[in-house]
Amino acid sequence: MESNSVSPMPEQNSQAPMAEFDKTPPTPPEDTLPMEDLPPPPTTVTVQEEKEKEAQAEIHRHYEDENEWSCGSWLEYTVVVVLASVLLLGSLGLTLFWVFQYRGGFAWRENPAKQFNLHPVLMVAGFITFSGFSVLLYRICRCCRRIYVKLLHTVFHALAIPCVAIGFLAVLDSHNLAQPPIPNFYSLHSWIGLVTMGLFAIQFVVGFFSFLILLCCEGATAGFRSALVPIHASFGLTTFMLAIAASVSGLTEKALFSLPDTYSQWIEEGIVINALGVSLIALGILVSFAVRSPTLKAGSKVDVSDRI
Amino acid sequence: MESNSVSPMPEQNSQAPMAEFDKTPPTPPEDTLPMEDLPPPPTTVTVQEEKEKEAQAEIHRHYEDENEWSCGSWLEYTVVVVLASVLLLGSLGLTLFWVFQYRGGFAWRENPAKQFNLHPVLMVAGFITFSGFSVLLYRICRCCRRIYVKLLHTVFHALAIPCVAIGFLAVLDSHNLAQPPIPNFYSLHSWIGLVTMGLFAIQFVVGFFSFLILLCCEGATAGFRSALVPIHASFGLTTFMLAIAASVSGLTEKALFSLPDTYSQWIEEGIVINALGVSLIALGILVSFAVRSPTLKAGSKVDVSDRI
Ligand code: HEM
Ligand code: HEM
Ligand code: HEM
Ligand code: HEM
Repeated sequence: MESNSVSPMPEQNSQAPMAEFDKTPPTPPEDTLPMEDLPPPPTTVTVQEEKEKEAQAEIHRHYEDENEWSCGSWLEYTVVVVLASVLLLGSLGLTLFWVFQYRGGFAWRENPAKQFNLHPVLMVAGFITFSGFSVLLYRICRCCRRIYVKLLHTVFHALAIPCVAIGFLAVLDSHNLAQPPIPNFYSLHSWIGLVTMGLFAIQFVVGFFSFLILLCCEGATAGFRSALVPIHASFGLTTFMLAIAASVSGLTEKALFSLPDTYSQWIEEGIVINALGVSLIALGILVSFAVRSPTLKAGSKVDVSDRI
Repeated sequence: MESNSVSPMPEQNSQAPMAEFDKTPPTPPEDTLPMEDLPPPPTTVTVQEEKEKEAQAEIHRHYEDENEWSCGSWLEYTVVVVLASVLLLGSLGLTLFWVFQYRGGFAWRENPAKQFNLHPVLMVAGFITFSGFSVLLYRICRCCRRIYVKLLHTVFHALAIPCVAIGFLAVLDSHNLAQPPIPNFYSLHSWIGLVTMGLFAIQFVVGFFSFLILLCCEGATAGFRSALVPIHASFGLTTFMLAIAASVSGLTEKALFSLPDTYSQWIEEGIVINALGVSLIALGILVSFAVRSPTLKAGSKVDVSDRI
């Protein structure tokens, strides 16, 4: 299901032309940040420079007050950040609760059925919680320097990799070590899951290469990188949506495998599983809203008439 | 899952300010079309008027040539329209094939198991095929008058209503008439399905009221209606994505109910079900891409710098 393309938002690309008749752009366009600006060098600051900075900050504040940070924007920001955090951590918590309360917790190798339990937990941790926060970072950290946000985005996605890898191994093992072994990759869920993992890997490799490695010859690759941003964002959101589709179908499978007769009796475990599924669906709606909302776009210059 | 919000695209709303320094806008903004323009009134045309129209057409063509219909846009248009039509009709065809080839076809009342078969077919017909074409109409019919597209959009959604209603009745009956009766609304699938149908109903009522009924006092409601468009589009896409999530989880359920032991043996029917699921996922990706693509937006004025 579930997936998406982000239309290249004019705010992202219009910074270059804008800058020409507005010599003090509120935030420097990301692509002109040199790699060296990573650790902010401690320099001696002259009074003149200090004044200039203040003036710039003044303009910045003024600009934001008028166009960016109205009362409604603050409200939207707070609601999205709080709700998203609650849902991202909550769905991981609910998965853990489900696995420990009803499925007997974890094991490795000696008990394939319990080893399976690592699969939903690690997949939700990697694809939902880590990836979700990583994507939202660009919306949450509005005031940080862009390169820091980018590095954190990379770190969070990097943390998702071992989760996904071990979660995948867990389900493979639980199939191959079972007596008799269970065949692999027969289900719609596993097909969706494989596509999700493939897209994730491509996103990571292309993102890492393009947005970090290519900073080495920063000027020459700026055009390429800024053209890639909307594509990267679309595919990233697609990956997130596919992960949610995979989780929903996985939960449905597991409910029918483990509760063949009792799922339809409205038992507690079934309701926990459904609640988990519904929170994942809600996350899908919320994250794609947050990524697309022009108000939440950090450091973007949105003309008032664009926002009507 | 799976769902989405469309950021208010500047092209939609910027027509009003644009028109101020471009006295011959290529397409009249939708909201100024009076209701009476439905049947184009046969008027006697003066030579002067004819000339004006030609000039306008000329400007229109010129404008589109430069900004809108480059070679790449034609390619994108053709690929999206052809692929979407194939997938929309193909998934309905595949559902019918599955139901007749492997599930014994339809029945009403006398055989609850066969009555159930109406459920997937009618749900896919209503929520995927009709809704999908209806949403894509705004992209496919680039040259028609806006009011016709709007009416067709309404008609297609209206056709989806009986499909959904009978499809829902079919599964209710198949539960209640079974011996012993099967409980209702216990599964994650049914929860997602209920949310989808609720959103669809709201969308239809709000859309019908706002975009058709409110045309009666057209000038007074223009602001409200244009503010509603991005909200309506977001919720519409959300509904479509939820329908895909519902279908994927429903297919997973049905596969495990009907093929408890053979699904994992890679049998033909399992592969047909998985293929159907994968085409629905592909549709989700394609439709959300089409709806958001700035190139495909009909009659929109996209500044070249916005498209980089
Ligand atoms: C984004 C998240 C997920 C991905 C990418 C994913 C991926 C996969 C893959 C590739 C398989 C096939 C393994 C094999 O056949 O050897 C699989 C199996 C399975 N997964 Fe997941 N999974 C995800 C989340 C979940 C969740 C949340 C559950 C819930 C309990 C779940 C339940 C299952 C079950 C029951 C199986 C074994 C049956 C089958 O092969 O379909 N999965 N998963
Ligand atoms: C080393 C890996 C990665 C790097 C360096 C990277 C870098 C970036 C950059 C520079 C942006 C632009 C944000 C903007 O301008 O608003 C971005 C956005 C995004 N990335 Fe990544 N990315 C990486 C991996 C991934 C992966 C694996 C995913 C998939 C889950 C992903 C999903 C996204 C999404 C959805 C956005 C859009 C957020 C927005 O609109 O601000 N990224 N990423
Ligand atoms: C957008 C599409 C769909 C919607 C809105 C939807 C909605 C629903 C609802 C509300 C129920 C609960 C009925 C009850 O409990 O009495 C249900 C049941 C069911 N549906 Fe669907 N459905 C959709 C598509 C499908 C598809 C494509 C299949 C594939 C075969 C399917 C398979 C089932 C099954 C097996 C049940 C009975 C088990 C259960 O209650 O979960 N559904 N559906
Ligand atoms: C009588 C009912 C309806 C009317 C009169 C109506 C009218 C409209 C209008 C005027 C637009 C604006 C298109 C644009 O400016 O690009 C629109 C777009 C849209 N509608 Fe509806 N609508 C109705 C029902 C629905 C329903 C039930 C759905 C949900 C499935 C839906 C989904 C959409 C979507 C996704 C779009 C965005 C397409 C685009 O961006 O062009 N509509 N509709």
